[in-house]
Amino acid sequence: MAILQPLIDLAAVCYRKGIRHVVISPGSRSAALTLAFTRYKGFSLHVCMDERSAGFIALGMAQQLGMPVVLICTSGSAAYNYAPAVSEAFFQQVPLLVLSADRPKEWLHQYDGQTIYQTEIFGKHVKRSFEFSTEYEHKDVKWAINRMANEAVNLAGMVPMGPVHINVPIREPFYPSGSESFQESEYIRIIERPNSAVIFPESVWHGLLNEWDESPKILIAGGQNKPDPELKKMLKTISEEWDIPVLGDCITNIRDDEFIESHDLFLPDAGQELVPDLLVTFGLSFISKEFKQFIRKNPPRRHWHIGEDDFLTDPTQSLTKQLPVSADYFFKNLFDRIDNQLFIQNSEPETEAAFKQKWLQLEYRSRSEKAVFLQNIDALNDLTSLDRILRYSDASYQLHVANSMSVRYVNAMGVNDAVSGVFCNRGTSGIDGCVSTAIGAAMVNKQNTLLIVGDVAFLYDRNGLLVAPLPSNLKIVVINNAGGNIFRMIEGPGALPEMETYFETRHAFTAERTCEDSGIAYFKATDMGSLHAILHAFWENQTISLLEIFTDPYENEKVWKLLKGLLRS
Amino acid sequence: MAILQPLIDLAAVCYRKGIRHVVISPGSRSAALTLAFTRYKGFSLHVCMDERSAGFIALGMAQQLGMPVVLICTSGSAAYNYAPAVSEAFFQQVPLLVLSADRPKEWLHQYDGQTIYQTEIFGKHVKRSFEFSTEYEHKDVKWAINRMANEAVNLAGMVPMGPVHINVPIREPFYPSGSESFQESEYIRIIERPNSAVIFPESVWHGLLNEWDESPKILIAGGQNKPDPELKKMLKTISEEWDIPVLGDCITNIRDDEFIESHDLFLPDAGQELVPDLLVTFGLSFISKEFKQFIRKNPPRRHWHIGEDDFLTDPTQSLTKQLPVSADYFFKNLFDRIDNQLFIQNSEPETEAAFKQKWLQLEYRSRSEKAVFLQNIDALNDLTSLDRILRYSDASYQLHVANSMSVRYVNAMGVNDAVSGVFCNRGTSGIDGCVSTAIGAAMVNKQNTLLIVGDVAFLYDRNGLLVAPLPSNLKIVVINNAGGNIFRMIEGPGALPEMETYFETRHAFTAERTCEDSGIAYFKATDMGSLHAILHAFWENQTISLLEIFTDPYENEKVWKLLKGLLRS
Repeated sequence: MAILQPLIDLAAVCYRKGIRHVVISPGSRSAALTLAFTRYKGFSLHVCMDERSAGFIALGMAQQLGMPVVLICTSGSAAYNYAPAVSEAFFQQVPLLVLSADRPKEWLHQYDGQTIYQTEIFGKHVKRSFEFSTEYEHKDVKWAINRMANEAVNLAGMVPMGPVHINVPIREPFYPSGSESFQESEYIRIIERPNSAVIFPESVWHGLLNEWDESPKILIAGGQNKPDPELKKMLKTISEEWDIPVLGDCITNIRDDEFIESHDLFLPDAGQELVPDLLVTFGLSFISKEFKQFIRKNPPRRHWHIGEDDFLTDPTQSLTKQLPVSADYFFKNLFDRIDNQLFIQNSEPETEAAFKQKWLQLEYRSRSEKAVFLQNIDALNDLTSLDRILRYSDASYQLHVANSMSVRYVNAMGVNDAVSGVFCNRGTSGIDGCVSTAIGAAMVNKQNTLLIVGDVAFLYDRNGLLVAPLPSNLKIVVINNAGGNIFRMIEGPGALPEMETYFETRHAFTAERTCEDSGIAYFKATDMGSLHAILHAFWENQTISLLEIFTDPYENEKVWKLLKGLLRS
Repeated sequence: MAILQPLIDLAAVCYRKGIRHVVISPGSRSAALTLAFTRYKGFSLHVCMDERSAGFIALGMAQQLGMPVVLICTSGSAAYNYAPAVSEAFFQQVPLLVLSADRPKEWLHQYDGQTIYQTEIFGKHVKRSFEFSTEYEHKDVKWAINRMANEAVNLAGMVPMGPVHINVPIREPFYPSGSESFQESEYIRIIERPNSAVIFPESVWHGLLNEWDESPKILIAGGQNKPDPELKKMLKTISEEWDIPVLGDCITNIRDDEFIESHDLFLPDAGQELVPDLLVTFGLSFISKEFKQFIRKNPPRRHWHIGEDDFLTDPTQSLTKQLPVSADYFFKNLFDRIDNQLFIQNSEPETEAAFKQKWLQLEYRSRSEKAVFLQNIDALNDLTSLDRILRYSDASYQLHVANSMSVRYVNAMGVNDAVSGVFCNRGTSGIDGCVSTAIGAAMVNKQNTLLIVGDVAFLYDRNGLLVAPLPSNLKIVVINNAGGNIFRMIEGPGALPEMETYFETRHAFTAERTCEDSGIAYFKATDMGSLHAILHAFWENQTISLLEIFTDPYENEKVWKLLKGLLRS
């Protein structure tokens, strides 16, 4: 039996529980972990030397797979470099299993190399923290490590999913001898935990239906949610049957011609006639500040939020009921129950129809004005370039959008049916891992993947491009406006004399040489003519490719403010 | 009075306590902090969009200045990107004042943008964590913020220095109106705290001198320490007067022809005749694993460690006494007291002289064999290239060395008088901030600065090069051996079939395009001829310049092992 047998068994537990992807950053203290996973045949192994990017690559994979992805790093500050990705995974509810090698605890604060306080290093940003024993002799230790491995993998994948950390102090010698066998041991146990169904008893449904019936004006609104065709279909049926408007941001992934998606343009200053009696929300964060402000200013009489989270989140400051079930279960059962009622006492079909109509009128007006507006601008700027690019796209594409302006642009413009799903790191809304997340997603989603990212977010996370091989199904669009344009867009900093130097941080970097370094096909556009001239080639290129679009900050500011003011004049 | 007046006053407290450098990463929530420091005239302001690099740039500055440097970032995962630099600063005892903007606490876990658990986010890796109130109306709040600002700055700069964190939740509106005045308020108070002198009473000295006298064989050995000419002079006198060998790693910064610096080559397997009766150590971590192993195997009867740290650190597993005073105070007072003794009871001058002689014999033999060895290799490899470069250098240069192989090479080779000081991030020994630390140092040390860094550490931290303007007094030497060569050097991984893929991570990246992007003059060498051909031009270049030396991993491994085996055959 190998000296570090429990670590070999850890890999076996992960595999037998369905984990298939491992992102490794090189290290010596972590050698036994690395070898345990590389020698247990069946894992897809990915190597990234920068742990910050490695963390986000794993996050992008796990976000797509809905299964934990393993991260392995050495001791010391290496694990701290995972922290941005771990906190994003926690708030975005993406399952990660972080395995950090550590020195034996005796060496803490002994001026020894790569030794920091790793126990519970991610604070409240993991679902749970485990730590293995450094000694493996006692049979209880073997039992405990096997048990913890089971618990950690189960926990990461349980709804709400999230990151779980196992800190693994390892004593020397941590390299195996050549003859050492890497076989899982006989005592290994897989402790299963089938998924349970979370449902409401009829008594709860009875109360819910009563409140539903008492609410002639109902609005359904979704925050961030993975693409879910069943849910979308159910919402469509509910919307059609009972004249209920359904609103979603681009990252809600429920896009439909008859759903509300342009609310950034007509909220929060719309009239009272848009205020529902009952607001039903699901999903995680809303991108739309306008929507949140509208509800905060006009709290509905009732607000139900559907989701199995045990935190009480109330971003619209209007919640009256948490419904701890899945959105799929809720809407399907809601529909079945209402549909089976012989009559609905307080139904007011005219009010309902009028209410939905008011939302749709603003939606359709917004769409048509947006379309005319974007069509009529011939000049290249952030908005028109994204508009033209998305026209090229189709439902074979998955879209990743960086934080800061990119996601605001896409949410305000809408994506029509140009993509099959929209992803953005809205857990913490940082720019720190947008490139790596898209790389990780493209590595496992086996479909065309498009990333839209600003120049600052691109530069910040360019180390994601050090991973090899890069996925050929990824296209990156860098909107290079020579700095953090967001600071001139939002209220406040725009007028400050310090704006360009300390907020926007103007620069002259381009992505071209970074592309050459990483073997990425590079395309660029500096005006609408050159954009149209290369779009086809960019789109048809079969290797990983990057299109950099150079735009003018002043022009971007002007056009963005015009778009946001379209319906407010 | 401005709405965020206490933050304006925070900048004033920092300035009036002597802080002069501020590293800012752009953000909206942090706008009031940014403006407070930019508008308080007198600070040197540096902008870096990547907080990870910003953290290390600040660390490099503070390491040189011995004064806290301020870091400012926005809310969310931004602060987490500081964590690698904060943990390094903690263990290297470098003063930082981290100011992280935060959302008001009401928004925690509300799916709101850039909101994570920032309270005490750096765990045990700061000297103390503070958090300001979000409301400023109550007079006690004004008092508390002013008091905390005083405490935080004082604390960061008190020995042992280190990072201090102030979390600053800020409510909207966080941008000032155009007319808002930025004047410090009248109630601001500077609470002074003069440095106290830490000394021993005569009774303690009496006991120490007795033990000293009972120890014919005494060895003084230093860990990481900033250049300190007074200390070096005192150690030289002590060594000469009483025949005491003095040993230091390159980062001990006490280099002298008669001190021990080549111990990596002849320890740990030297004979018993090198074991002291009394070992006196000072400074932080030792690079030399060989020295630590030698002492662990041969614990001296007594081991005193000098340093004001309140942690009990004992990396050689031999400590018998902590002496919580400064090394300067200790050696000066030791010398004065012994020098004034009329006679020393147990002095054994012959034993003392013989003991020192044994150390020096091995030292001189190592130096001469090293010199012949390096001279006789005409081929370019990691070691010979560093040898040739250091011959070009002189005492006008400060040397920064990256972790992993770079610092091992330099420690084994020695630096002669080629540089005036050697710095390396040995607090956590990570590769994550080596480039940025050197940039920060060069920005404030106003002297020629040379960084030696491997290709992996360079790529990892290349975002430090996004800062503008880059210091023209910085020269960077990238030893590009196409991966993490350290894994083939150390025992264990070298023989593994997984070595190249999962440990060394071979790659074909070069620094050339990164240099073009950042306006860095680029030089390269692929053999000894081309190195000699460009060394002069590289050295004479007046702007920031980078020399990339391409070496062969197999050759490097061979030569390194030969060097380490020189005295062991």
